[in-house]
Amino acid sequence: MVYDSVILGAGPAGITAAVYLVRKGLKVLVVSVDVGGQTLISGSIENYTGFSFVTGADLSLKFREHMKLSGAYLREFERAEKIVREDELFVVKTEKDEYKAKTVVVATGKRSRELGVKGENKFKNKGITYCVTCDGPLFKNKEVCVVGGGNSALEGIIELRRLASKVYVVNSGSEFTGDKVLIDKVYGFDNVRIYHDAAIDEVYGSEYLEGIKIRHNNESVDIKVKGLFVEIGLVPNSGFLDIVKKNEFNEIVVDKHNGTDIAGIFAAGDVTDVPEKQIIVACGEGAKAALSVFKYLFSNNKLSY
Amino acid sequence: MVYDSVILGAGPAGITAAVYLVRKGLKVLVVSVDVGGQTLISGSIENYTGFSFVTGADLSLKFREHMKLSGAYLREFERAEKIVREDELFVVKTEKDEYKAKTVVVATGKRSRELGVKGENKFKNKGITYCVTCDGPLFKNKEVCVVGGGNSALEGIIELRRLASKVYVVNSGSEFTGDKVLIDKVYGFDNVRIYHDAAIDEVYGSEYLEGIKIRHNNESVDIKVKGLFVEIGLVPNSGFLDIVKKNEFNEIVVDKHNGTDIAGIFAAGDVTDVPEKQIIVACGEGAKAALSVFKYLFSNNKLSY
Repeated sequence: MVYDSVILGAGPAGITAAVYLVRKGLKVLVVSVDVGGQTLISGSIENYTGFSFVTGADLSLKFREHMKLSGAYLREFERAEKIVREDELFVVKTEKDEYKAKTVVVATGKRSRELGVKGENKFKNKGITYCVTCDGPLFKNKEVCVVGGGNSALEGIIELRRLASKVYVVNSGSEFTGDKVLIDKVYGFDNVRIYHDAAIDEVYGSEYLEGIKIRHNNESVDIKVKGLFVEIGLVPNSGFLDIVKKNEFNEIVVDKHNGTDIAGIFAAGDVTDVPEKQIIVACGEGAKAALSVFKYLFSNNKLSY
Repeated sequence: MVYDSVILGAGPAGITAAVYLVRKGLKVLVVSVDVGGQTLISGSIENYTGFSFVTGADLSLKFREHMKLSGAYLREFERAEKIVREDELFVVKTEKDEYKAKTVVVATGKRSRELGVKGENKFKNKGITYCVTCDGPLFKNKEVCVVGGGNSALEGIIELRRLASKVYVVNSGSEFTGDKVLIDKVYGFDNVRIYHDAAIDEVYGSEYLEGIKIRHNNESVDIKVKGLFVEIGLVPNSGFLDIVKKNEFNEIVVDKHNGTDIAGIFAAGDVTDVPEKQIIVACGEGAKAALSVFKYLFSNNKLSY
C-alpha cells in the first residue's frame, strides 16, 4: 500500500493537514506518539479563535474527534525514526513498521527543553516535571519551584500558587518575558517568591527530590522543594530527520508554502522555523502544507484519480 | 486617544489579531463593517480544526463572542477609507470618524467580484446576489442563473438545482475550472442548462429582476430568471489603501511575519498575497500579525507600559 501522504505527528498542524488532505480525496496515514501534541499538556486556552475558553484536554479531544471523522488512517503510539527515499517514494520507518508514501508532512512539534543539571534524570517524575497542567495537582500543599520566565512559566506559577503552599520562581533573565497580563498577576501573589537573574546549580534528594541550590546575586541559596517545574522553552522533535535542511535550532526550514528543500517533503507547526509557536498558527500552517501537498501531487501527475 | 493598534476588519484574521493583542495588554480598536467577514456567508464548514461540522453563521457567532470577551474596542458598521501618517502615528479615517494608532493591522478580506453590467446596482438584493448560501432559499421553485465556472459557481449550482426549478449557467470560459468531482456532478443534472463561452450583456426588470440577455455563439439569448447568482471570484478590499505595496491582484504584499513595506503597518488574511484563502489560515496569519505588532512596538520602545 502506498499512501498519498504520511503525516508525522498529530498535534494541531498534523491533524489539520490530515483533515484537509482527506477532503481532497487522498489516502492519508498519520503516525504519531499521541493525538493532540502539546495541546494535551496545555492548561487553559483563551486564544484559539472560536473558543473563548477551553482546556487543553478538551481541545485535544475535539481535535481527535475531528481527525477521526476525517477518515485519515492513524497509527498512534508510534514514533517515526527515519525517512528514506526509495525510487519515487518515501519510506517512513518507525520502531514497529514502515510506510510508503508519495509525500510526507513532518509535524512532529516540540518537546520541553531540559535543565541540563546533574541529577535531572534521576529525579524525573520523582519531583522534576515539565508540565504544570499534568503534574501540578501532585504537589498540593507542598512547596515547589518553577524555572523559567516566559508565558509557560507564568501560567505555571498562576496555576501552582493555588495548589502549592509556596511557589519559588527561578528566572535567568532580569525580568519576565511573557504577556503583561500574566506578569501583573504573578507579582500580586503573596505565596510566590521570585528570583530574577538566577540559575539552578544543583538538584538533590534521596529517592525523591528534596531541594535545589540556586545561584542568585553571587550567592548560593538552598531551597527545599518537593516539586521542580521546568518551563524554559522547547526543542524541536527533528532529531530523527537527516534528509531535510534545518536551522541552527534544529527547526526544519520551510518556504512560504511549507515546502522543505526536498521536493515531496513538507513541514508544519512547531517543528519548523516559523517563529510563532501557537496552536492556531500551527493549524493554519498545517492547512497550507496540505494544500501544497495537493498542488505538488497534482502538478507532478501523482494523483491516483 | 492613541491606540496601540487599530485593526481593520473583523473576519477570522482581524478577530484573532485582536484577541492576541489585547492579551498582550495593548489598547486595541477594531474597525469593521461586520464581525465574521466571509465566515458569515459560508455554508457548512468542515475544515476548521476542532469543529468537525459547524455552519458559517454559528462559527461567526463564536468568533464574535470571542472578540467581545477579549476586551478589544469595536466600531462596527464602519469602513476605513484612508490611512495617513501623522508624525510617529497612523491616522485611520472612516466615513464617520478618525482614529490614531501606533500600528495598523489590515485584515479587510475580500468581497465578491461584480459583473460590471448596466443595471447591476439597481437589482442588487432585488434578484442579483453574490451568495448562494445566503440567498438561495429565496428562489425556491423559481428559475435562476449562476454566472461563473470555478468551485464557488459549481458548488452554487449543486446547491441551487435542488431549490430552484431550473438553473442556467453562464460561464465565460470554454470549460469549468473547478475540481473534477464538482464538474462531474454538475454535468449530471437535468434541470441545469449550461452556456460556456458566454457573457451577460444586460439585466432587466421593473422593480425586481425579470431576466438577462446573454451573448452565446454570437447570438443574443434572452433568459427569464428571477435570480442571478454572481460567482466570478473575489477581489481584495484594499482599494482604500494607497500607502502599502500591493501585487497585480491588489493583494497586500506581506513578508513571512505579516509585515508590509511600511514599518508599523501589518496585514493578514485574504486581503494579503498569502495564496491559501482559508478560515484557519487567516486565523493563523492574524495571530502572526499580532505577534509582529507586539515585537515592533517592543523593539521600538513604543509600548505604553
